[in-house]
Amino acid sequence: MKIKRPESKQPIPKDAERVFKGVIFDVYRWEQKLFDGSCRVFEKLERPDTVVVIGVTEDKKIMLVETVQPGKKSYFGNAAGQVDRDEDLLMAAKREFLEETGYKSRDLKLWFAYQPASKIDWAIYFFVARSCKKVAEPLEDPGERVRLKLVTLEELVELVLEEKFDSPEVSMEILRACLDEDRMKRLKDLLLG
Amino acid sequence: MKIKRPESKQPIPKDAERVFKGVIFDVYRWEQKLFDGSCRVFEKLERPDTVVVIGVTEDKKIMLVETVQPGKKSYFGNAAGQVDRDEDLLMAAKREFLEETGYKSRDLKLWFAYQPASKIDWAIYFFVARSCKKVAEPLEDPGERVRLKLVTLEELVELVLEEKFDSPEVSMEILRACLDEDRMKRLKDLLLG
Repeated sequence: MKIKRPESKQPIPKDAERVFKGVIFDVYRWEQKLFDGSCRVFEKLERPDTVVVIGVTEDKKIMLVETVQPGKKSYFGNAAGQVDRDEDLLMAAKREFLEETGYKSRDLKLWFAYQPASKIDWAIYFFVARSCKKVAEPLEDPGERVRLKLVTLEELVELVLEEKFDSPEVSMEILRACLDEDRMKRLKDLLLG
Repeated sequence: MKIKRPESKQPIPKDAERVFKGVIFDVYRWEQKLFDGSCRVFEKLERPDTVVVIGVTEDKKIMLVETVQPGKKSYFGNAAGQVDRDEDLLMAAKREFLEETGYKSRDLKLWFAYQPASKIDWAIYFFVARSCKKVAEPLEDPGERVRLKLVTLEELVELVLEEKFDSPEVSMEILRACLDEDRMKRLKDLLLG
């Protein structure tokens, strides 16, 4: 299955010049024709895409991770990481999920994908991994400490309402589901069905 | 009144090197000591802060703007723009609001402020401007076309539920208010009180 990359709201034109190449971010620049025919220099970034995996264990608990990075406040979120160049998205999701949590799933599928920032060409892919089983210890990463937390859907709703969950996209899906029976039914089917 | 700048989750250290200076984005780099004592190159961006103004007219209609920029899909959001270097935040909010909508308010105050992206040092300040009056035509900007749309709070809730409103932060505030009577009371006080 080939997953389609979501389009940027404001794509970098093909003739844009790369003016900086960084460790994570590249910077592009181009002369953009405005509505009155005049021109302005536009600047936009490119960074590697991200995969996020919402794991659900065999006994229907949602797997959150509390991530601590050097010099950064800790937060509750989902297992996530960078897609390597030319890496298959499903492979990247499986790899990051296994590395961060030590869990594996045979039932991994894309939930949704989008580009969050109009000035960065950057897609985030959200996967759901059901029937997860622990098969290994999480990989030690000197740049990151991860603690696993298993919650029910009701407990996740509480974390979202209390602003203790770090993903705005997943939070919005959950809040919308709380306000719409059909959406909640679909969300439960997706996560727990 | 001095508004406090919200802190980044992962501040750029004072000794970081600026490796690129752009039109919008500057890039900083530093050697970050990891948990095991080893080092890794960290990279983080800096960009000018943003002010967002949610206007409310004298007859309690919420002012949305539909913005069209060259090469970018249109969207419903709020009047917003960049804070100039050393510009006072309230002044920046007033200026951007007047330029984009042609409206003025004598009752402008900060709602909330935060940093949305851990890899960009970038604060967004959300203001509410009540009792707004039209005093001018919006400033012509060859880089942007703006159409004003006046809605009730109920209509704004519908737009958020239908995923037609572009601000995730304001959307989440509204969705949380829909699930909590006290929050809804505070939101109504803030916007319509």
